[in-house]
Amino acid sequence: MLYQTANPHGGDLFGHTVNLDFSVNTNPLGTPESVMQAVVESAGRLCQYPDPGCRELTAALAAREGVPVEAILCGCGAAELIYAYCGVIGKGGALLAVPTFSEYEAALEAAGLKAAHFHLRKEDGFAVTAEFLEELRQTSCQTVFLCNPNNPTGMLIEPGLLAEICSICKQRGIRLFLDECFLELSDGGREASMAEMLSSFPGLFILKAFTKSYGMAGLRLGYCLCKEEKLLAAMSRRAQPWNVSLPAQFAGVAALKENSFLEKARTLIQEERPKMATNLEKIGFSVYPSQGNYLLFKSRIPLFLPLLERGILIRDCGNYVGLGEGFYRVAVKQPWENQKLLEALREVSAPASVNVKIDF
Amino acid sequence: MLYQTANPHGGDLFGHTVNLDFSVNTNPLGTPESVMQAVVESAGRLCQYPDPGCRELTAALAAREGVPVEAILCGCGAAELIYAYCGVIGKGGALLAVPTFSEYEAALEAAGLKAAHFHLRKEDGFAVTAEFLEELRQTSCQTVFLCNPNNPTGMLIEPGLLAEICSICKQRGIRLFLDECFLELSDGGREASMAEMLSSFPGLFILKAFTKSYGMAGLRLGYCLCKEEKLLAAMSRRAQPWNVSLPAQFAGVAALKENSFLEKARTLIQEERPKMATNLEKIGFSVYPSQGNYLLFKSRIPLFLPLLERGILIRDCGNYVGLGEGFYRVAVKQPWENQKLLEALREVSAPASVNVKIDF
Repeated sequence: MLYQTANPHGGDLFGHTVNLDFSVNTNPLGTPESVMQAVVESAGRLCQYPDPGCRELTAALAAREGVPVEAILCGCGAAELIYAYCGVIGKGGALLAVPTFSEYEAALEAAGLKAAHFHLRKEDGFAVTAEFLEELRQTSCQTVFLCNPNNPTGMLIEPGLLAEICSICKQRGIRLFLDECFLELSDGGREASMAEMLSSFPGLFILKAFTKSYGMAGLRLGYCLCKEEKLLAAMSRRAQPWNVSLPAQFAGVAALKENSFLEKARTLIQEERPKMATNLEKIGFSVYPSQGNYLLFKSRIPLFLPLLERGILIRDCGNYVGLGEGFYRVAVKQPWENQKLLEALREVSAPASVNVKIDF
Repeated sequence: MLYQTANPHGGDLFGHTVNLDFSVNTNPLGTPESVMQAVVESAGRLCQYPDPGCRELTAALAAREGVPVEAILCGCGAAELIYAYCGVIGKGGALLAVPTFSEYEAALEAAGLKAAHFHLRKEDGFAVTAEFLEELRQTSCQTVFLCNPNNPTGMLIEPGLLAEICSICKQRGIRLFLDECFLELSDGGREASMAEMLSSFPGLFILKAFTKSYGMAGLRLGYCLCKEEKLLAAMSRRAQPWNVSLPAQFAGVAALKENSFLEKARTLIQEERPKMATNLEKIGFSVYPSQGNYLLFKSRIPLFLPLLERGILIRDCGNYVGLGEGFYRVAVKQPWENQKLLEALREVSAPASVNVKIDF
């Protein structure tokens, strides 16, 4: 047995021959040239330890996010920060709105904490609704995890509702862990961030990453925003001093200088996503509403292996709490890639109806 | 305040103008060309998540170390593995032979564990002696940390003594955390590793890193060897799935293909170290015996700031438990670099005796 080989996530290209990876939701434009260049330049400085304080990167993030440097902590990918957070919040249950990203629960378990599940309903397109407010008003959980937009559904939490969620959490002394890793590629964009609530609600913890927005999954770079300084200090102590590599720090600084990269990506996603949804429905799948850079759909027939045989990797969502067999998630990619996926899905799904036309 | 800026270690180049860094003990030959090339090549694949199982790298390590893949776990630098280890060994005190690497104690503290100190004696050149066996026979600690060669002293533990340490630990049910991160650059070389004891002593945990041996501090890549599968599995669960970046995995595989790099470095170190020691003594410092790629010495006058003013960073060991003011550690580097250090030290230390000749 190899440790960590039972990868329950997407993006596991290492065991397969994959030409097209729709299983991870990174930026359809890939990695900015400037970020690749920063990594190439870092190759000459590998002898050096990275800056434990990530000073240059943190200063650039502070300027971008409009928060002081003390409210920022960088990590080896957002995932490290999830584990560090769960490792320091102390006892008290956590509430998850499922289906959602499985690492919250894995990190809670690793820290010996219990997760309670609030089930988002298929009938609501898995959106967070006002019902969740009721749950919050009576829960005994001391931490709530929300992902905006949610993964794997792509639904944004309506801004008014999210403000109410913050308000109830603050009032009841509940910490809110808000994962905004996909926000900048979603219809909401950076403007939909709750960062401006940080000062008035120190129990608010916002998770962000370069992984998705700047196509930097391989480099491992995430960060969080929070005004509870003791919490960030405890997370920092729990991690080793050099958790963010030199190439990742250089790449992060380069990424933040990109001006129109995210906007171009969002335009592309907003053009492609409805076309993909329409075509997936035409093939016969039930497609759930999404405001993100990925689509969740349900199929009556198994898709994972038949697509893999065609060199295409998609995310089988069968192992998500609250979903189950038949659910799949695909990233919204470049038009020619999306078209190849749709062609393959058509082949696999409807051998008898090969003449279904794909509108592009 | 920035988190993690109070870097208590060497290698903090980011706050200073440094031309020569003697504060970190990495390979004097730098980073192998093949490793830099691997990082450059990884720049085109940054969109991809790294393999959570580090499969190619782990297979290469298994072949090199002669252990099965199940006995190997990779981490984001050896430091991450120290924290993961301390996070899962459970309650029960830990015994440290001090002075030694401070991250053991920081990681124990982060895990809520107490460290007991066994003081190595200046009179013994800070070597581990038979007295330590007595301590082991009566300690109530359940884990012992040893660094071979020790950092910051550079002393190897005599092989017969180390075998006895293993034997007592095994007999008494004490876990032994043995840090071999500097071993391959020391006079002992890889042959001095205790890896062959792993099968007969499952409580033995060996820490290794690419950081020092292959000049890869910036990339963050370490690994450990242990036959207690449950321990490695718990460490793996405690870490996020993608803790080892794609560039680090590629670089590690490239490094393991290097044939003569470590041998060349060791030859250089063995030529330079005695010359440096002699010259440091001539300048008037008390130099402690070392079999590693660094030298610990004591000075009657402060050296850190005067050297920094000359663009040279050395390790002020004043904050090591068991040392104190006046202790400094310098890496053994290339001849021309060592000479510059000695010249600067001569200037700083003995303004009246500028004519002390440096033998090179």
